[in-house]
Amino acid sequence: MTKRIKLNFVEKNCPILDNPGLWTYPESEAHRHGDLSYWMELAVLLEQAKFDGIFLGDALGTFDTYKGGRDTAILEGISMPIHDPTYLIPAMASVTRHLGLAVTCSLTYDHPYALARKMSTLDHLTKGRIGWNIVTSNLDSAARNFGYDQQIEHDSRYDRGDEFLEVCYKLWEKSWEDGAVVRDIPNRMYTNPAKVHDIAHKGTYFQVPGIHLCEPSPQRTPVLFQAGSSHRGREFAAKHAECNFLNAVTVEETRYLIRDVRAKAEKYGREAGDILFFPRIVPVVGATDEEAQQKIDRYLQHLSTEGTLALLSSWTGIDLYGYTPERLYELIAGKSGGNGYITDYLRRAQQDKQWTMEELARLYAFGGLGNVIVGSPGRIADHMESFIQQTGADGFNLGYITRSESVTDFVHQVIPVLQRRGLVQSEYREGTYREKLFAHQAGLPRSHPGAQV
Amino acid sequence: MTKRIKLNFVEKNCPILDNPGLWTYPESEAHRHGDLSYWMELAVLLEQAKFDGIFLGDALGTFDTYKGGRDTAILEGISMPIHDPTYLIPAMASVTRHLGLAVTCSLTYDHPYALARKMSTLDHLTKGRIGWNIVTSNLDSAARNFGYDQQIEHDSRYDRGDEFLEVCYKLWEKSWEDGAVVRDIPNRMYTNPAKVHDIAHKGTYFQVPGIHLCEPSPQRTPVLFQAGSSHRGREFAAKHAECNFLNAVTVEETRYLIRDVRAKAEKYGREAGDILFFPRIVPVVGATDEEAQQKIDRYLQHLSTEGTLALLSSWTGIDLYGYTPERLYELIAGKSGGNGYITDYLRRAQQDKQWTMEELARLYAFGGLGNVIVGSPGRIADHMESFIQQTGADGFNLGYITRSESVTDFVHQVIPVLQRRGLVQSEYREGTYREKLFAHQAGLPRSHPGAQV
Repeated sequence: MTKRIKLNFVEKNCPILDNPGLWTYPESEAHRHGDLSYWMELAVLLEQAKFDGIFLGDALGTFDTYKGGRDTAILEGISMPIHDPTYLIPAMASVTRHLGLAVTCSLTYDHPYALARKMSTLDHLTKGRIGWNIVTSNLDSAARNFGYDQQIEHDSRYDRGDEFLEVCYKLWEKSWEDGAVVRDIPNRMYTNPAKVHDIAHKGTYFQVPGIHLCEPSPQRTPVLFQAGSSHRGREFAAKHAECNFLNAVTVEETRYLIRDVRAKAEKYGREAGDILFFPRIVPVVGATDEEAQQKIDRYLQHLSTEGTLALLSSWTGIDLYGYTPERLYELIAGKSGGNGYITDYLRRAQQDKQWTMEELARLYAFGGLGNVIVGSPGRIADHMESFIQQTGADGFNLGYITRSESVTDFVHQVIPVLQRRGLVQSEYREGTYREKLFAHQAGLPRSHPGAQV
Repeated sequence: MTKRIKLNFVEKNCPILDNPGLWTYPESEAHRHGDLSYWMELAVLLEQAKFDGIFLGDALGTFDTYKGGRDTAILEGISMPIHDPTYLIPAMASVTRHLGLAVTCSLTYDHPYALARKMSTLDHLTKGRIGWNIVTSNLDSAARNFGYDQQIEHDSRYDRGDEFLEVCYKLWEKSWEDGAVVRDIPNRMYTNPAKVHDIAHKGTYFQVPGIHLCEPSPQRTPVLFQAGSSHRGREFAAKHAECNFLNAVTVEETRYLIRDVRAKAEKYGREAGDILFFPRIVPVVGATDEEAQQKIDRYLQHLSTEGTLALLSSWTGIDLYGYTPERLYELIAGKSGGNGYITDYLRRAQQDKQWTMEELARLYAFGGLGNVIVGSPGRIADHMESFIQQTGADGFNLGYITRSESVTDFVHQVIPVLQRRGLVQSEYREGTYREKLFAHQAGLPRSHPGAQV
């Protein structure tokens, strides 16, 4: 039997999703990220199509590497303005009943006592549909505005992250016992105080002696998402993540990353099925392959090469302004820092052929390192099916090129094909987001470190 | 002409609103604070009744003074569990068009860069209907769980608060010029980078060099609420608040506090009409005075004396367990700290008569220091009208005794009387929350310090 392909749709509370220039097409949609109506309509559409969830990205700073400043990013609307994504959740929850709602929150600039409360509150309000994409943030501009001279050093950010999660797990899993809240009117007991416990956490980064402020929510711990691609990031994902987002484009890389994280996860006593893997794809669909090709040609006319170089510069940590492809290659080859995955990818691409800067920009322009697939509904479904079979991935994070149009095309044209082939669900299973994804209980499995604090 | 009485309804994301024991009546409502449906129904009801706004209180710790621990508060559901109130806003906004949405956020345990973003995001999503109740937090248990040994000393908390607001004002008012976001497709300019500015804040408590993450929202700065009653708290309100909540019960105290804050506000160059004052009232309404009296007698049967002593203990900072009224009087008379207003009030009450502890508890049991009025719709409307005339207040913060029942009674029985008399609005004015309250522009008036950063 073919395994079911799980689908999360990716969005961000800003003008465009990693596609510089595309805010100009279609012209009416980019700014709608500030309107509740956009998010509520989107949630309804995704639930009608039986998507597993929506995934909201975020950033807490400006993309200011290119030309040594933020002007290109601001001009192009690249992650700027970028509003708080967590406040989209309650409105989307109010018009849906099943759709999973995963949101990015950085643990670098928040306190675990406050973040644990946010997530518990949202898990109550959504009746158990919350996922948390754990990020440690990677923008210097964010660090500076939160009062640090520069961002906390990469590896110690993850050490702090480990302890941050330990505090959250204690608050979510151990502070309030099942059955603590009794609402026993004859005995006039709302909560049994004997079943509410101090977590007494004393660590390197945090001291949290007290109790959680929220009663246990349906899932207690939100479904945990992670997307780290560095070595330390994959280690972190192997320990904590239940869903892992991958930016790998090729079958080989995807397969490698999945095996690597699964192998690391074993060290922590976790089982093979405990982590689901979601590579990103960006479908461009037409009724026929020709129509799809015409569509992407139309999109390409809106593409901004400058904007793409600005995006790439921030991702790699290298100011690409004025660089030749050769200089870029030399720089990358001689550089050990930056984002390992992206720099590796660039290096390999450079070995295969002599890219121009424009071509490099185009390569990255669509889908934000996602795997862009162009074609008829049947072709896209074929690709998705074979990619899953070849890589062992569990589903996809679906990126888009144009707001509203891309997802509407996919829902109306590709979803019916996938459903007819039995590749995606046609009905929702009852239960929480975790139950829907894993078919086990609402809470964390026993093998997860959060269940062992 | 009689001035229009403005109305905000008070709620909290926890089982009861300062009325210990009342979660047992009516039995089905206390736990609904975790359901979006409760908040959305409430918002619709308040908008039908043309309330100016809803005001969401909060607390970030346990009420653990009584008997030296938190058990009574937990047993009685007193501000525990208490979930994040900000996430109720988007769902309430989605089913209303005019209702103001004011929410409490502590500035003691948040960073201005994150808080400014929260408020701007919410102001966008609500199309300019956000108010922020600025609190500096007063619970030791909150301080400990955020990593402080004890809470920041009272006055320096306000100094930090002043600087916190200065940072927020710079982000909200100065970082993005009007017209910075142009979405000019022919010229491919989403935002004009020349109109987005670093705030370059270097202060005692915060360093924030960069730009705000959000584009200007309809109000830019949310409507600012404050409820501090200490001397330093009133000073803070005089400088920053546009709406001031008062816990004063008598005409004399209300009048005194309003005059005092207005006099202080003049020092900051603000005008008499720049601050609106909202004392708290808690109406208990029946078709007749007798029926209302029967209702409050029924409520009193649900009252918890223990719970009330726990609430009072946390408010005063004095563990009242085992205290006689005489000891309490002596303690208060010899004590300069604690909440100035409440301790003063207790001292005066003790001078008038010899209270029993039970009576003291009952005195405070209903309405959380609010002015409880019991009677027919006409009697309650009379009281409201004369209280406004005598004190110079601008409206009321409406507390409640039982969830849902109290506000439904008020909306269906008292609002029509107030509307017939022309004392409250029967239609909403167009515009933002600030425009509705003050009839001036969407943003801060020029006399406000936030407009002068």
